[in-house]
Parts: sequence; C-alpha cells; structure tokens
Amino acid sequence: MHQEFLQKAIDLAVESAKSGQGGPYGAVVVKDKRVIAASGNKVISHIDPTAHAEVMAIRLACKELNDFQLPGCILYSSCEPCPMCLGAIYWARLAKVYFACSRYDAAAANFDDSFIYDEISVLPHQRRIAMLHLNLPNAMQPFKVWAEKNDKVLY
Amino acid sequence: MHQEFLQKAIDLAVESAKSGQGGPYGAVVVKDKRVIAASGNKVISHIDPTAHAEVMAIRLACKELNDFQLPGCILYSSCEPCPMCLGAIYWARLAKVYFACSRYDAAAANFDDSFIYDEISVLPHQRRIAMLHLNLPNAMQPFKVWAEKNDKVLY
Repeated sequence: MHQEFLQKAIDLAVESAKSGQGGPYGAVVVKDKRVIAASGNKVISHIDPTAHAEVMAIRLACKELNDFQLPGCILYSSCEPCPMCLGAIYWARLAKVYFACSRYDAAAANFDDSFIYDEISVLPHQRRIAMLHLNLPNAMQPFKVWAEKNDKVLY
Repeated sequence: MHQEFLQKAIDLAVESAKSGQGGPYGAVVVKDKRVIAASGNKVISHIDPTAHAEVMAIRLACKELNDFQLPGCILYSSCEPCPMCLGAIYWARLAKVYFACSRYDAAAANFDDSFIYDEISVLPHQRRIAMLHLNLPNAMQPFKVWAEKNDKVLY
C-alpha cells in the first residue's frame, strides 16, 4: 500500500518535470488509506519558490479537511523533504512521511536541498545568506500581545 | 533604516496577534530601500500551516516582481525564521535577513521553532515524525526526465 501511494508521488514528479510546471517532485497526502491531496512541484507555474510538491499537497489537504493541521495523515514524497518542507510537515503535524529519493540524489540533479541542510548548522550571521539579529526595544511586544490574548487559536 | 523596516515587521506581528489571523509574527521584503511586500502570519485565516509571515511576504514579493527568485531583496522578520522559512529564504535567494526575536523567544511563547531545528539533526527514521525511505525501482525516473529536458527552467 505504501509503495502504491509513493508510486503516485513519483508519477506526479515525472509529470511535473515533463510539463514544465516545476521541478521533478511530487507528493501525496493520505488519510485512512484515501488520497486527500496530491501535487507536483509548481515553482515555475505559480511563480512561487515555496510551491514545492510537499508544501502544495499540505496546503491542498488543509483546504480539503478545513483544518490547518493534519494529524493522522501520511505524506508520500518522491524525494526526501528539503528543510522548508520538513518544517511544513512539522507545522502541519503529519503522522509520518515516506520518501523515495534522498537529498543527495537531489543534489546530484543540482538542487540545493543538501546545501540548505548544511547551512542550518552554520551560525546565522555566518551563513551564505546572512541572518542578522537587531536589538529593538519593543521586539517582544508581539509575544506579549499573544500571551495576553484570551481567545487565541493555538497552532 | 534597517531598524525602521524591522519595526514595520514587528508592527505587523502585533497586528496579526491582535486580529486573530495568525500567530505573533510579521515580515517585510525590501528592494532598493522600498517595501515590495509585507505580511503578518496568516495560519488561522488562510487555514494554511505554511502561511508564516516570511513565506507570505516572499510569495507576495514574487507576485509583485513576477519572479520566483528575489535576488537583491532583504527580508525583515519580527522573529528568527523557523526551518520552513529558512528554507523558503534560500529557495527565494534573498540577499540578507534581519530579525528581532530569537527561536528561543518563540519557544518561550510555546511555538515549535526551536524543537523543529533540533529535529533536523536527528536521523530521519528516528524523528518524532518518522521519515522513512522506501526503495522503489523507478525512484530516479523524475530526475532522469529532468536531466533530459532541454527547455527546463532552472530554479
């Protein structure tokens, strides 16, 4: 069963690469053995660098289930998720992930997945894209407002 | 100047928390000292766990510039980007990032940023959301199609 859903993700990846909509990636979200959402990579067609297959499938599944979290859902991805997609998987609170290719396969095809993984362990200000902390007096104000909000929706 | 743009991101974060549209986060994309796009966190209102302020601002900036990459642009974020947003920043090829609060401030407010950073260094199959490799005979097919495609758009 897992193989079948993962095969669907691979088929979507082939389709995405052939069509020119985006890179050679595909992903499927499954709940109770039923496909809830599926997508190829849409970076090119959506003019959106965040439109990776996993992010797209998660967004579509959330719309389908009318929920910003996906507990009990499994993600099948044609390739090991990049750090962005890994983050999306945690925020969506998926149950499990199955993948076919690795970040090193992606690197061999000139995609940055492995490079971005390496950058995470570099100190923020020393990264290739420098991430610099600025000290502002009211930096904590948003968290204070959040803490005091009684009717907040937790996510 | 950097302080001013970062203050705008903080103001958006306060607004986002107050309005209930999402968590207490805000982000601004600037090019040539001009604001191209700005957004608060929209996870709740968009029913989308990927609608973090940074991802939203990047998506909006790409629409504005009609480009899926943002070279020469600077991102200002009210808080250190989580791994998902860090990935988005690399895929968008931003020039630099300035942030006000840290992942530890976010953790103190019960957000998972720091936890997700820690999960990245755990072996995929041992993570809290297990990521399992399945060996499929045609796993590399998408990358083969991509390699052979002459008119592909690189990203």
